[in-house]
Amino acid sequence: MENQKVLVNGERLRDTLEKFADFGRTANNGVTRLALSEQDLKVRSYFQSCCENLGMDVFYDDMGNMYARLAGVNNEKQPIVIGSHLDSVEKGGRFDGVLGVVAGLEVVRTIVENKVKPQIPIVIANITNEEGARFEPSMMASGVISGKFDKTRMLQSTDNHGITFKEALEASGYIGQEANRLTEAEAFLELHIEQGPILEQESLKIGVVECVVGMVCYEIEITGESDHAGTTPMQMRKDALFTANSVISQLRDRLSRLDESIVFTIGRVDVSPNIHTVIPNKVVFSLEARHQDEAIIKQVEEIIQAIPSSPMKEDCDVTLRKLWGRDTVWFDSAIVNILEQSAKGLGYSYKRMVSGAGHDAQFIATYIPSAMVFVPSVNGKSHAEDELTDWDDCAKGVNVLLESVLRLTAE
Amino acid sequence: MENQKVLVNGERLRDTLEKFADFGRTANNGVTRLALSEQDLKVRSYFQSCCENLGMDVFYDDMGNMYARLAGVNNEKQPIVIGSHLDSVEKGGRFDGVLGVVAGLEVVRTIVENKVKPQIPIVIANITNEEGARFEPSMMASGVISGKFDKTRMLQSTDNHGITFKEALEASGYIGQEANRLTEAEAFLELHIEQGPILEQESLKIGVVECVVGMVCYEIEITGESDHAGTTPMQMRKDALFTANSVISQLRDRLSRLDESIVFTIGRVDVSPNIHTVIPNKVVFSLEARHQDEAIIKQVEEIIQAIPSSPMKEDCDVTLRKLWGRDTVWFDSAIVNILEQSAKGLGYSYKRMVSGAGHDAQFIATYIPSAMVFVPSVNGKSHAEDELTDWDDCAKGVNVLLESVLRLTAE
Repeated sequence: MENQKVLVNGERLRDTLEKFADFGRTANNGVTRLALSEQDLKVRSYFQSCCENLGMDVFYDDMGNMYARLAGVNNEKQPIVIGSHLDSVEKGGRFDGVLGVVAGLEVVRTIVENKVKPQIPIVIANITNEEGARFEPSMMASGVISGKFDKTRMLQSTDNHGITFKEALEASGYIGQEANRLTEAEAFLELHIEQGPILEQESLKIGVVECVVGMVCYEIEITGESDHAGTTPMQMRKDALFTANSVISQLRDRLSRLDESIVFTIGRVDVSPNIHTVIPNKVVFSLEARHQDEAIIKQVEEIIQAIPSSPMKEDCDVTLRKLWGRDTVWFDSAIVNILEQSAKGLGYSYKRMVSGAGHDAQFIATYIPSAMVFVPSVNGKSHAEDELTDWDDCAKGVNVLLESVLRLTAE
Repeated sequence: MENQKVLVNGERLRDTLEKFADFGRTANNGVTRLALSEQDLKVRSYFQSCCENLGMDVFYDDMGNMYARLAGVNNEKQPIVIGSHLDSVEKGGRFDGVLGVVAGLEVVRTIVENKVKPQIPIVIANITNEEGARFEPSMMASGVISGKFDKTRMLQSTDNHGITFKEALEASGYIGQEANRLTEAEAFLELHIEQGPILEQESLKIGVVECVVGMVCYEIEITGESDHAGTTPMQMRKDALFTANSVISQLRDRLSRLDESIVFTIGRVDVSPNIHTVIPNKVVFSLEARHQDEAIIKQVEEIIQAIPSSPMKEDCDVTLRKLWGRDTVWFDSAIVNILEQSAKGLGYSYKRMVSGAGHDAQFIATYIPSAMVFVPSVNGKSHAEDELTDWDDCAKGVNVLLESVLRLTAE
């Protein structure tokens, strides 16, 4: 009977995901459900009723995080937590975040209908404002409960309409006790779409996530001189654009050679005065790089810091500003192993991989044994209305969670 | 007595330039005197009174161009015209344009006080709206009278406050007969600041301008794909920014090798979506190049047109749009020779050179024998409040005009 696995109900999972997507569904079949917006409050209420229908207790903490608790045989013990977020970006997709919460629901539904008696409680968590799309920064509430962010400052974060997070939270009806915060658990498990193309490209169904990669982000400012494009000979120019071009070429070349798995992006470039007949006197650009190995990130910083004293700056001045950096967060190896064994036991194709994107689990991992599961994103797309994960792949991801929960609650 | 030249009064020239600069002088000793603004109307009135005090007749044409005419011995003959513009850009300098008009005034003042009898009439011209800073395009009125621009369209050009050029012109009081347009002349001479660093760098006082260089301007659009900066491996990206950077590097390299006197500028770069965590999916940039030799400009265009089918475009798409081009305008060689002989005769250091910037003379040159004289710009600056030309250099430039006028009117 070893192979007679309890499996989730894929059709019910799909129906539930589509039901959740009704809260904020866009004309192009995406979702707009900003944190604590009307649609977010509606989906929270619906989520709560689903949990209560399963006999779960639902409570909130002081950041509006929701926790639905299914009692176990031994309720003195710490629970297993399955969680993610129900908020989305503007014109986002139907899977990012919500999949990890609905997964919890489907795991509990399967457990309840199969009359499985978990030894310890199971909690489904909906973490407030992961996206930071309405109130910056992203991963706000997990940052606060993990002690990474200052709550007072977070409460002051203001949306485009001048509404503070504090005001929105107070109006939401979802403020609970600080004592309710997720502070201890046997494990925190987050299922999420990959948001990248790797699983799809490699025809794999499951990503067992070992870490969220560290990153560093700099702003690089090149200052030259603005002169008339027609009257200034080339050799008398201090052209900030051509110098920036030269700097970027060499950065690209050097960073590419550090390691094949490094990713780096120049996403923002601002040119001044940005008039076609005037030689640019200033170019400011961002450079961010991500890699799991701290030593690689250190080399990235050395390469960046060498620019101001290098010939690549030509006749211009270069100033650097480190915008931020974060260390790689390694997930709990025992939990990672359980997720891997579950995927393997279910016969799913999988790989161990890293997460290039940030997730609530990276903050919670600092004090609770945590790990993540990825499922493939079609064309690697996310934060877009055409974000898509095959329904069968969603079910496979939830089955990995279920199997892991069963292993973790069976002892 | 060959060397006993008639010379202009440098002190009076300086006083007159400063008096003109009072009309729109800025806090930082620059000038804001947009075309047909209150300050422009005041300086026009003052200019007219100065001319009338010298016994000149002042009349206007239908574009508001002003012509002050000093009678010669033989008034049946076509005049010598000295001209430039009294309008400025916002926060411009005290020399650009106005020097060429005040030069005419100083030439006539010197001729009158020295009781020289010119054989033919001398006209000082103030050409309306050269800068195009209030009403686009630049060189509007010279463009209309030379048949380059359509008058009806120009009249519809609108400033930032919704006022059309037609309305401003009608309100100005400076509309005259179309028959008064400058249609024939023995010569058109324009003294202007260089607006570039060459004369200063080479320690020369006079530039005898042989041509206004031809140019071409393209818009180049690179289209890739926007993906998550953290989750998309480098080799799966279509990064429009890195591709644009590669294209720009190769353009810079190839264009630089065409000819040492070519100038080219990428002045405008727009990156989308321009967010530091998102791989850019679009970069649009302008590329303009200027050179006197048509064959070089043709090679520039060939280099640009080769981009879409070249490996430098990497995995992105490239589209090109030619924004405009203009041919080199060669000035009249006889007039250029006279200017050169005048500079040489006066013992001034000089060189023949090209103009990289556009000027009214380039349109007038299409039907009247024309040429220009440049005087040095300190630090090559223009269109800025710190635009500066040494007062002695201004006087030398006007002396070259005076000497040339005397040669042209002496026969």
